Amino acid sequence: MKKTPPKNAFYAQSGGVSAVINASACGVIHTALRSKHIGKVYAGRDGIVGALTEDLIDVGRESAATIRGLKYTPAGAFGSARFKLKGLEQNRSEYQRLIEVFRAHNIGYFFYNGGNDSMDTALKVSQLGASLGFPITCVGVPKTVDNDLPHTDCCPGFGSVAKYVAVSTREAALDVASMARTSTKVFVLEVMGRHAGWIAAAAGLAGRSAAEPPHVILFPEVPFEQQRFLERVRECVNSYGYCVIVVSEGAAYADGRFLADAGTRDAFGHTQLGGVAPVVANMVREAHGYKFHWAVADYLQRAARHIASKVDVEQAYAVGKAAVELGVKGVNAVMPTIVRKAHRPYRWSIGHVPLAEVANKEKKLPPDYLREDGFGISAACRRYLEPLIAGEAYPPYRNGLPEYVHIRGAAVKRKLQSDFKV
Amino acid sequence: MKKTPPKNAFYAQSGGVSAVINASACGVIHTALRSKHIGKVYAGRDGIVGALTEDLIDVGRESAATIRGLKYTPAGAFGSARFKLKGLEQNRSEYQRLIEVFRAHNIGYFFYNGGNDSMDTALKVSQLGASLGFPITCVGVPKTVDNDLPHTDCCPGFGSVAKYVAVSTREAALDVASMARTSTKVFVLEVMGRHAGWIAAAAGLAGRSAAEPPHVILFPEVPFEQQRFLERVRECVNSYGYCVIVVSEGAAYADGRFLADAGTRDAFGHTQLGGVAPVVANMVREAHGYKFHWAVADYLQRAARHIASKVDVEQAYAVGKAAVELGVKGVNAVMPTIVRKAHRPYRWSIGHVPLAEVANKEKKLPPDYLREDGFGISAACRRYLEPLIAGEAYPPYRNGLPEYVHIRGAAVKRKLQSDFKV
Repeated sequence: MKKTPPKNAFYAQSGGVSAVINASACGVIHTALRSKHIGKVYAGRDGIVGALTEDLIDVGRESAATIRGLKYTPAGAFGSARFKLKGLEQNRSEYQRLIEVFRAHNIGYFFYNGGNDSMDTALKVSQLGASLGFPITCVGVPKTVDNDLPHTDCCPGFGSVAKYVAVSTREAALDVASMARTSTKVFVLEVMGRHAGWIAAAAGLAGRSAAEPPHVILFPEVPFEQQRFLERVRECVNSYGYCVIVVSEGAAYADGRFLADAGTRDAFGHTQLGGVAPVVANMVREAHGYKFHWAVADYLQRAARHIASKVDVEQAYAVGKAAVELGVKGVNAVMPTIVRKAHRPYRWSIGHVPLAEVANKEKKLPPDYLREDGFGISAACRRYLEPLIAGEAYPPYRNGLPEYVHIRGAAVKRKLQSDFKV
Repeated sequence: MKKTPPKNAFYAQSGGVSAVINASACGVIHTALRSKHIGKVYAGRDGIVGALTEDLIDVGRESAATIRGLKYTPAGAFGSARFKLKGLEQNRSEYQRLIEVFRAHNIGYFFYNGGNDSMDTALKVSQLGASLGFPITCVGVPKTVDNDLPHTDCCPGFGSVAKYVAVSTREAALDVASMARTSTKVFVLEVMGRHAGWIAAAAGLAGRSAAEPPHVILFPEVPFEQQRFLERVRECVNSYGYCVIVVSEGAAYADGRFLADAGTRDAFGHTQLGGVAPVVANMVREAHGYKFHWAVADYLQRAARHIASKVDVEQAYAVGKAAVELGVKGVNAVMPTIVRKAHRPYRWSIGHVPLAEVANKEKKLPPDYLREDGFGISAACRRYLEPLIAGEAYPPYRNGLPEYVHIRGAAVKRKLQSDFKV
């Protein structure tokens, strides 16, 4: 009697990338390639788009060195996508296409590496068995620099951006402090976080007290009050000689209007899309006349594998590994989570949660993580954040530059005649 | 017969700080404290301002661990200043005050750690003997992230900012590449360099060919031509799927107008002081409609000791050490230089040059360091730059953050009754 060959696995990266999403890929791939329950391991080129267009990468044809190198290579090695599947009712054709591709390639496992939106997509795919009669085991792999997924202590990707932001704030603050007497007195650093202030909070690790920089953090969770802010800046300059401000891109007024939405126009009257850092810096200049500088970290922060958190890298790998282990056990529609066992020394383990519990949900900074004045972080927040940036996990260097790997990306031979327009 | 006590030394940091100016301080201090020709070692608090206000720090009262720690601590540990002495004719009182303070504290050596402007100040101080009858041995210690001092192969401070920019460009480019199919297609990184494009050039190290990012570098030395630029961006997006642009803050039109000077106004009609990155990004958006992101590294780049170049740290220490060695030999009005002996393997030694040869002079990118199309660097430029970013020199970490040192900063007892208003 001929034995049924094991099902193949499909892995895809989704949404904004991070310094360690490839470490999760590495965990998935290492574990899947070694599992006797899984046949081939395929990755979607450019995420789910690769599944829809039948553009699959045969991961087994990458060298072992390349797969290992994913652990220290930032961004999405297989390509990621900002692409959210609509509901089954709104766009049945996308799901039918997925099934067509999965069936053609004997895919029985779906590992989807992303954030809130992506977990929603993963949830929908996990329901294909019930809704369209194509059984598939679907496990989400958490990833988001925003740290806003619920039911997990933290999200892989966050620890490294947190470390980058804390280190950069500490360094830039030393710069400002040393020049403040005759030059720049106010420095503004803009960091990511449109709805949740986790990344901005991480900057708070750079200092130990309200007297140490950053002196002011502007969170999306705290409605911006211009007068109170400007007074605090003046107090800092008077007391410490300078003021370091970290502002979340999502900082907003009480009415919900983003600070970044300053209605700025260029010389031709066109709307100027700017960051919030220059808006805040100009506000300070107009009120107080201080000399200022500002920085916008943007992609630098989430791609900064050179200063990744060791804990973050390990957790990213672990959730990838756990996802495959859950999958081969037939556990469908779940996402591995990080479970904190102890703060100090930090201990953690892996748990899991139903996708339905995380899809489209956002975890914001709890009120008790904020300092009373709303311009900094509390001791509880520090206790939470500190272990997440612990340890360095330097990539290898060659000629002064990190030697990141690139995949060969050998395409799996197509089996379908039909094309699909994304 | 009583022996004359050796003269004391004065050290000051000047101008914009860097990731390794304290490594130069470490070289100066180690060498001076061990020299039998030098008595006490004093540092100016906030640079030359500390000399004028008789606010001196007794470096001998810092712990050995703190002095050692300067080698891995960014920014100006003693405080720096943007303060340029005027000519002797315009402001004789400043020079008289310096002499008064130096005489009161038996200072016979003046070590001034800075860039072009600072070397001008050092030159003026070196002439006090001839012009005002107060002999002092004055040696400049080169420091500038801009790399624009002449007669030295490179400037301490530059190698580290170059490494930061090359690493950050490589990382952010991986991010953009992985998302480009469905999201951001154009990324703009703004780096320092108001007059010289050395820092922007360093971004060129991130890629090996015109096909690899950064695809476009905008140098101050190359007049900006909007149409040619926009065409190149479109070509890149068509050919590679995305385009990474690095722009020098000093990028300008042929008529000398800075790109950053876009005449931007906020909602209230106030001038908005912005960076050049958003200006360039908006230009691309208006012409081509591509989704874009931009970053402004600002102080992050020059304070980034966490990713400093090992060669740079070593050279910074070496010029500090050499300055003291020259000083105690009585060599006045010079600045130690880096002399390149070989490209690969890289070998260098220390030379020196008269201050008059470097004061107020600027070394720009030579034309043969530019790629023919003006949007990248040549092989000659790569050969020059590559050794300067070589090697990592990680600071120690504690709880996930670099453990930078802070000086005690014990003040030397004042000897003068008079105050001086800077």
